[in-house]
Amino acid sequence: MITDVRVHDVRFPTAAAGDGSDSINKGDYSATYVELLTDGPHTGTGFTFTNGRGNEITAACVRALAPAVLSMGEDPLEFLRSLTADVQLRWIGPEKGALHMATGALVNAVWDLRAKTEGKPMWQLLAEMPTADLVACVDFRHIDDALTPGEAAAILDKGRDGMADRLARLRSEGFPSYTTSVGWLGYPDDKVRQLTRTAYAEGWRAMKMKVGGPIEDDVRRARIIRGEIGPDALLMMDANQIWGVDEAIANMARLAEFDPYWIEEPTHPDDVLGHARIQRAVTPVRVATGEVAANRVIFKQLLQAEAIGVMQIDACRVAGIPEVLAELLLAAKFGVPVCPHAGGVGLCELVQHLAIFDYLRVGTSLEGRMVEYVDHLHEHFTDPVQTRNGRYLVPEKPGYSSDLKPESIAEFSFPQGPAWN
Amino acid sequence: MITDVRVHDVRFPTAAAGDGSDSINKGDYSATYVELLTDGPHTGTGFTFTNGRGNEITAACVRALAPAVLSMGEDPLEFLRSLTADVQLRWIGPEKGALHMATGALVNAVWDLRAKTEGKPMWQLLAEMPTADLVACVDFRHIDDALTPGEAAAILDKGRDGMADRLARLRSEGFPSYTTSVGWLGYPDDKVRQLTRTAYAEGWRAMKMKVGGPIEDDVRRARIIRGEIGPDALLMMDANQIWGVDEAIANMARLAEFDPYWIEEPTHPDDVLGHARIQRAVTPVRVATGEVAANRVIFKQLLQAEAIGVMQIDACRVAGIPEVLAELLLAAKFGVPVCPHAGGVGLCELVQHLAIFDYLRVGTSLEGRMVEYVDHLHEHFTDPVQTRNGRYLVPEKPGYSSDLKPESIAEFSFPQGPAWN
Repeated sequence: MITDVRVHDVRFPTAAAGDGSDSINKGDYSATYVELLTDGPHTGTGFTFTNGRGNEITAACVRALAPAVLSMGEDPLEFLRSLTADVQLRWIGPEKGALHMATGALVNAVWDLRAKTEGKPMWQLLAEMPTADLVACVDFRHIDDALTPGEAAAILDKGRDGMADRLARLRSEGFPSYTTSVGWLGYPDDKVRQLTRTAYAEGWRAMKMKVGGPIEDDVRRARIIRGEIGPDALLMMDANQIWGVDEAIANMARLAEFDPYWIEEPTHPDDVLGHARIQRAVTPVRVATGEVAANRVIFKQLLQAEAIGVMQIDACRVAGIPEVLAELLLAAKFGVPVCPHAGGVGLCELVQHLAIFDYLRVGTSLEGRMVEYVDHLHEHFTDPVQTRNGRYLVPEKPGYSSDLKPESIAEFSFPQGPAWN
Repeated sequence: MITDVRVHDVRFPTAAAGDGSDSINKGDYSATYVELLTDGPHTGTGFTFTNGRGNEITAACVRALAPAVLSMGEDPLEFLRSLTADVQLRWIGPEKGALHMATGALVNAVWDLRAKTEGKPMWQLLAEMPTADLVACVDFRHIDDALTPGEAAAILDKGRDGMADRLARLRSEGFPSYTTSVGWLGYPDDKVRQLTRTAYAEGWRAMKMKVGGPIEDDVRRARIIRGEIGPDALLMMDANQIWGVDEAIANMARLAEFDPYWIEEPTHPDDVLGHARIQRAVTPVRVATGEVAANRVIFKQLLQAEAIGVMQIDACRVAGIPEVLAELLLAAKFGVPVCPHAGGVGLCELVQHLAIFDYLRVGTSLEGRMVEYVDHLHEHFTDPVQTRNGRYLVPEKPGYSSDLKPESIAEFSFPQGPAWN
């Protein structure tokens, strides 16, 4: 039984180093970190990632939502809606922004506790769950015009075929990945060149650069990276929402010579129709988005409008495992590959489970699938991601890999931790 | 000069009475109320409306954003983006939910101060502003594929023609309005019948009922209201987002016999494509939405997709006057009438200024225009709305009519005010 909900405002001072700098964000990578204390042997943990200032706001949202966790019953949809459709709190969403991110932290903590209790890593808990139990977690309200419970069940039933073979393959080869550590806007050209060269030597064959500064700078940096990685490796570009629709189309015409694999967040994350126009204009380059997509209703529309060629889920911007499950099922229905967003604080740790589950039971293919990798802050987790030759190794410890080390929580708690004094 | 930003968590205990109850909300109407103290004679005030729980979160957002107000410079777009595009805070939006609502409270307070300083009611300040100054306030990023600065300027220039005549007409006749006080879901049938009869006797010829309960209940209540108001008065319906897309289409087929003028919020507020499908299915009934539309990018798409026949702006969910201005200009460009959302705490007080400005300078027509009216909580404002025969009278005092009485702030402050003890 859950006896208490604790929340920590944990912030890492990354802004000063230029890590994580892009066209529109410059952050102190932070986590609104939740602990569910119980009368049993396990503590459930979950978090939502924020960019520094504002972490106190998502923490306040966790406190506002905590009573629903302490009084939760057996029905998973009823519990989910007690958070997403609270008759008063929903007004400051609904299902978006700070409140929804806090919901994600809490829901993920509940699922982490469940996985720990069953002694399974999250991917395994999900992959082995009966279809009916998985379907019962999903809120089909507002997406059932695109995906019915029956269609979801059919996808999950079919996903059982060959699951053992796919798992054996993953355990042998790891999960494909790409690195974002080479091309932050805050880095000078020499550092970009050196990081690219190092990453290539380490085995990475897919790399992402930030764009959205002055276009001539973007062109120059793209030329450096493409020059280092040769014609065969994949080069992804990420504009972090800065462009208007017409501007995105014009700038991608300039950058096309560097053969980008995808353009990520070319414009405002709420602009479904804008992404659709951009996708039509830049094909065969894929439009990718989703790390800031507010909820499953935005993803539903991006798929319905054929606005994206790559769907980037986030583990903790939406309402945790159940809403991510809805998103994975939508992507499978529409035949769009899922490449999870990672980086930040602990996002790699979370999304590896989601990508593995997707491969095992939902999408069932590795074609076009890659998990983002950023080499930051893993040392603060008790079960950090492991990579080899540009691939994620399968995590085998129970839970969602979301436990921060107690000493890291103490050191980086804001504002009272030693790191902030 | 602004010397301090104060924020009050003010809540009115309305939930117990069933006022404001609909298919999805049941609230204690609340305001995150901002005061901008100055070294001059005036205090700027602004607020965002919330539904009770969560008001402490929007208040926390105001505190996080306040430094940008204290350090604001001359450039209006730079100031706006210092709030909407803060490199750290934007991650918990962007431009949506609690953070954006707090932005609205602060920006409106800045504009209220300006109007008081110039000694003009808000509608007059805006209507008399040079076109270039109005255009300079708008953030065209992410909407310039639908509306360019040049198009906006042309609309505002043309809006000067006949402005004096339109103002004279408003001062003589008032602004058209409709009432939402008759059909909250929390009211029993007898109360609905009595309220409808009373409203009709007072001169109202347009009334809105809540739907989205069991469909037979909706049908029964619609029959009561239509029976009372006869065939010629307008009956609007409001589902408050509860339905799925297919469900909305099916339920409106059932309710069509009562000749609804519009169906409001038939589904999730983020679902642009869903609204477009519903609009195609229910025409000639108009789809109306916007009170929970997160920002101008959502409105842009609703217009581009021909998803709405009525656009319902909110005064303080978005980034205040400048973003509302963008929305009014978009509506004018696409030829869709604006009928502002009101009710709650003080929304009638605010939106009357916006509707009047829209008529004077932007939309320049009263055809299909109505401001919502709910007869709640006006007594707490120092300059409350005045209505006569179902019309708003033109407010003539300086400012945005947003000042709460000091004794109301004291009485209803949460949790320490006497009303909450």
